[in-house]
Amino acid sequence: MLTNPRAERVRSVRALSKRSVRERTGRFAVEGPQGVREAVRYAAARVRDVYVTSEALERYALDIVEPARAANLWVHEVSAEVLAAMAETDAPQGVLAVVDTVDGARAGADAAGPAAALAAVLDTHPRLLVLLTNVRDPGNAGTVIRGADAAGADAVLVSSASVDVHSSKVVRSTAGSLFHLPVVTGLDVEVTLETLRAHGIRTLAADGAGSTLLPDADLTAPHCWVMGNEAWGLPDEVRDACDDVVRVPIHGRAESLNLAMAATVCLYASAGQRPQRGGVTPAGYRA
Amino acid sequence: MLTNPRAERVRSVRALSKRSVRERTGRFAVEGPQGVREAVRYAAARVRDVYVTSEALERYALDIVEPARAANLWVHEVSAEVLAAMAETDAPQGVLAVVDTVDGARAGADAAGPAAALAAVLDTHPRLLVLLTNVRDPGNAGTVIRGADAAGADAVLVSSASVDVHSSKVVRSTAGSLFHLPVVTGLDVEVTLETLRAHGIRTLAADGAGSTLLPDADLTAPHCWVMGNEAWGLPDEVRDACDDVVRVPIHGRAESLNLAMAATVCLYASAGQRPQRGGVTPAGYRA
Repeated sequence: MLTNPRAERVRSVRALSKRSVRERTGRFAVEGPQGVREAVRYAAARVRDVYVTSEALERYALDIVEPARAANLWVHEVSAEVLAAMAETDAPQGVLAVVDTVDGARAGADAAGPAAALAAVLDTHPRLLVLLTNVRDPGNAGTVIRGADAAGADAVLVSSASVDVHSSKVVRSTAGSLFHLPVVTGLDVEVTLETLRAHGIRTLAADGAGSTLLPDADLTAPHCWVMGNEAWGLPDEVRDACDDVVRVPIHGRAESLNLAMAATVCLYASAGQRPQRGGVTPAGYRA
Repeated sequence: MLTNPRAERVRSVRALSKRSVRERTGRFAVEGPQGVREAVRYAAARVRDVYVTSEALERYALDIVEPARAANLWVHEVSAEVLAAMAETDAPQGVLAVVDTVDGARAGADAAGPAAALAAVLDTHPRLLVLLTNVRDPGNAGTVIRGADAAGADAVLVSSASVDVHSSKVVRSTAGSLFHLPVVTGLDVEVTLETLRAHGIRTLAADGAGSTLLPDADLTAPHCWVMGNEAWGLPDEVRDACDDVVRVPIHGRAESLNLAMAATVCLYASAGQRPQRGGVTPAGYRA
């Protein structure tokens, strides 16, 4: 049991709150039972270490500890003081995991860089994607990843100009969705749009200045929603490079929706027009 | 020009950050140009005082200062120190207004209490409403108000158990929408559901345990979305008291959407099925 909050290992975990350390080590921290449980369940190959207090060891025995041990992961018992010293949040609820940002073991696709990771996603013939070109707010980025997961998107693409999705605020606001679908980071926007088009994926800029209203947009073919910055939207050159520019209709007096809301409304509009995997359209969905 | 940050007036504005003071005085503070502009534009009868720094006086001359003076509002020039002492936020961008929480001048409807304010809303034959029964997070509450405005809802109803919508965090996250549509606070949930039904308004509980999927819900008649608590949803007795329990379909591995996202998706589904005011359905909307 680790009890010394000043130990080198404790400080090295705490240091993952810095973006530079995450980039250098290729690791990040996941705090709290929801995120750790989903990481163990869906991304066990990337989980390096799980740290649990005595109390949490009992509370999350079935949820986290047994599945982690069954996957041959390191589960370390730590004192509450050690966990508090490791964690960036005030209340990590007794659980923290250190996770690789990319899956180095998986044929090296992610580890070989953003372009290779994007190619791996495109090999799966995705039908619904979202690209964050310049999202700066951690809560917005995390909420879009969660919304994309809920709407059944096949992956989330994130440009190099966007917030680091492995920061603790983003990780927390994804509510575990970060481990549910591929999240490709570090992409160049222009190259990505060209690559998507070359793979027959329509690019739809979501923008308040769009000429196509969301209910009029053709969402039946494979497509990617392209989201801009919270404050200034998408630059002209990105809008121009997309196949269509779509706006969510504003019915009342509001100037706009926030980015996460707009993305969620767009993604759910796509889900409503999307045939289920296998081509079956269940009753009640618009085909 | 007010220059003394320790003046009684400055302290009385700052005190509005306390809920007890807001309730006793019936006033709240709106910080920043977006909120103040929308308050002056859409709720001038409720604006008591506008405080502006010299710099902001020039910057927002057309947006805020002239409209405020045209509406015979008090516009006070203050030093940056005074504004900082009045404000709860770090960067109110040179503008702050003190606003009445209810419209005491308007035939006394709001001032006569929640039931009378609800009756005034129902007199307008609303077709789309949302009721927050137990929303605790300020960001969620504000975002729902903004989403309701954007989706063309006729009013937002808020129970007495929910967060105070006049707290600075809620006001800020409404992005001005607080002044765009009626927001009735302090309601009793059970009585409100009965009143809505008596007025022919269907009540739709939005809940992950709902048996009706959102795309299957009948949203053509006047209805009210009933939203529960962020963590534990709606209690059985509220679900049972509603006409239908509707869930947003989750297509991926996410456990749920957050409350603001779920509300926005539901409200936009309603907007998509709603005839425009006057009965005209523009091309591209699902009638």
